[in-house]
Amino acid sequence: MRTMQIGMIGLGRMGANMARRLARGGANVIAWDRTAAVRRALARERRIAAAPDLASLVQELKAPRVLWLMLPAGKVTEGILAQLQPLLAKGDVLVDGANANYKDSMRRAAESAARGLQYVDAGVSGGVWGLANGYAIMLGGEARAIRRVTPFVKLLAPPKGWLHCGPSGAGHYVKMIHNGIEYGLMQAYAEGFALLAGKREFGLNMAAVAELWRHGSVVRSWLLDLMADNFRRNAALDDIAPVVADSGEGRWAAIEAVELGVPAPVLSLALAMRFASQGQGDYGAKQLAQLRNSFGGHAVESAGVRGGRGVRKKKKS
Amino acid sequence: MRTMQIGMIGLGRMGANMARRLARGGANVIAWDRTAAVRRALARERRIAAAPDLASLVQELKAPRVLWLMLPAGKVTEGILAQLQPLLAKGDVLVDGANANYKDSMRRAAESAARGLQYVDAGVSGGVWGLANGYAIMLGGEARAIRRVTPFVKLLAPPKGWLHCGPSGAGHYVKMIHNGIEYGLMQAYAEGFALLAGKREFGLNMAAVAELWRHGSVVRSWLLDLMADNFRRNAALDDIAPVVADSGEGRWAAIEAVELGVPAPVLSLALAMRFASQGQGDYGAKQLAQLRNSFGGHAVESAGVRGGRGVRKKKKS
Repeated sequence: MRTMQIGMIGLGRMGANMARRLARGGANVIAWDRTAAVRRALARERRIAAAPDLASLVQELKAPRVLWLMLPAGKVTEGILAQLQPLLAKGDVLVDGANANYKDSMRRAAESAARGLQYVDAGVSGGVWGLANGYAIMLGGEARAIRRVTPFVKLLAPPKGWLHCGPSGAGHYVKMIHNGIEYGLMQAYAEGFALLAGKREFGLNMAAVAELWRHGSVVRSWLLDLMADNFRRNAALDDIAPVVADSGEGRWAAIEAVELGVPAPVLSLALAMRFASQGQGDYGAKQLAQLRNSFGGHAVESAGVRGGRGVRKKKKS
Repeated sequence: MRTMQIGMIGLGRMGANMARRLARGGANVIAWDRTAAVRRALARERRIAAAPDLASLVQELKAPRVLWLMLPAGKVTEGILAQLQPLLAKGDVLVDGANANYKDSMRRAAESAARGLQYVDAGVSGGVWGLANGYAIMLGGEARAIRRVTPFVKLLAPPKGWLHCGPSGAGHYVKMIHNGIEYGLMQAYAEGFALLAGKREFGLNMAAVAELWRHGSVVRSWLLDLMADNFRRNAALDDIAPVVADSGEGRWAAIEAVELGVPAPVLSLALAMRFASQGQGDYGAKQLAQLRNSFGGHAVESAGVRGGRGVRKKKKS
């Protein structure tokens, strides 16, 4: 049997660990990252070699090639694709494993097909835990392209943790909805624990409650496992600002709900709460504070009390 | 060592299975339900006896007694407690394992204490799966009362699946928040799958996606396990009306968020979506339809199209 060989492009948190998991599974990985130190460090590991540039990467892979991209979505992916495509030969397969918008993936698949290249959109879930546990992988594309990448997907995913979801775009679509759900689940837990923390007279041990719920309760989940672990390490949330980033997927899911005309109020609201945490609700809150003052003479807190962000300090009773 | 003996009052879905799990664990159970056939059927099982009435139940238990109530919250629990309390002796322990409002539990604990009785509020999670998997149990009450019920709790719960959360009320408070979170989690999954179902051009296999997500994804959970099982059995949702009941706990959680002044918008909105599914949003929707007609002359659908409930039928394209 021919040795499995794959090109991995983009060696960030996800890409580097996926390259490792592929190599540990027996595949030969030719890796490239724009940062030389990053690609050289990874190339010290068994069955991983680093290519100095994209042209070398392509040369070192035997045709028909499989190239897996783990780059930031949008312009970075677009730019690297534009560099790569002229270097490739008919029958080569491009896999985009990053969190791309599924509409971009559909367009890129069509553009690749016009050049005789195959394109697979791969939604990848698992974060920093994927190296050990495997990554859930959602694939979109033509059956022949999927067949080409399946041996690699089987190394990356847990036994039942991958699926050919449908045509081009379907993989990233399913991943987008996955992340939308993730926003809602996270917000639900966060609100529940906030209500536990807010009930001070009960003096609840949050770490103990989180741990208890992991065993036999209806709300047990992998996210709860993570929260229970966090409570053990930092129940006081020391040095954590109340600011939650969002990566794009949650926005696309909310937009999709509007485009489909299907209500997804909890997913959309969980996203809006992240925007609020980023300070994007502050302007509106200031307007409300001023308006209450205008019609009711209610006191307005000066900006120094809370600034743009941060939690309101309650007076000690 | 003295044989463990417990009275179980209320043999519905939860109570009957909890009596079974206690008996299978080695406890002797004296059971009562207002329906004679129900208590007699259960008494055919090993180590379970039925009492014909509450007075007999109390007589058959040796003091100091442990009585576990699994009754509908509110008036039913209140009525049975009023009958039971005069029958009991100092040092007897009452456990309310139903979904009571934690404020009721705090009041009942105080009333029981005034009679020399001990009172434990026990939030119980696990549903119909608890018999096999064990029930997660959240306890509130004084330490000496908790010590008395701990041997039984250990039979009911999985190894780490129980906790003395705090003083009276804390058990039901934690259970209330647990259920509030459950509403949010369920709504998040429901919205996500609705967005998958709504993307018809991808022809997604919902059962396969649910199964995939169980393996290595960030959204894996026990609720997702249940959904994957449901998809296997009834992916078309045949004979399921789009009407979701609510049991009271979600309402209490939403009210608590208001009383604490802590935002829980996703939990509150998940509850509101249930109200809407029950047809409680229809009046408002009719007003909106009429108002759009008033200012814009937009067509109003006649009531026959959708009635008060049910899903809108889309034209086949």
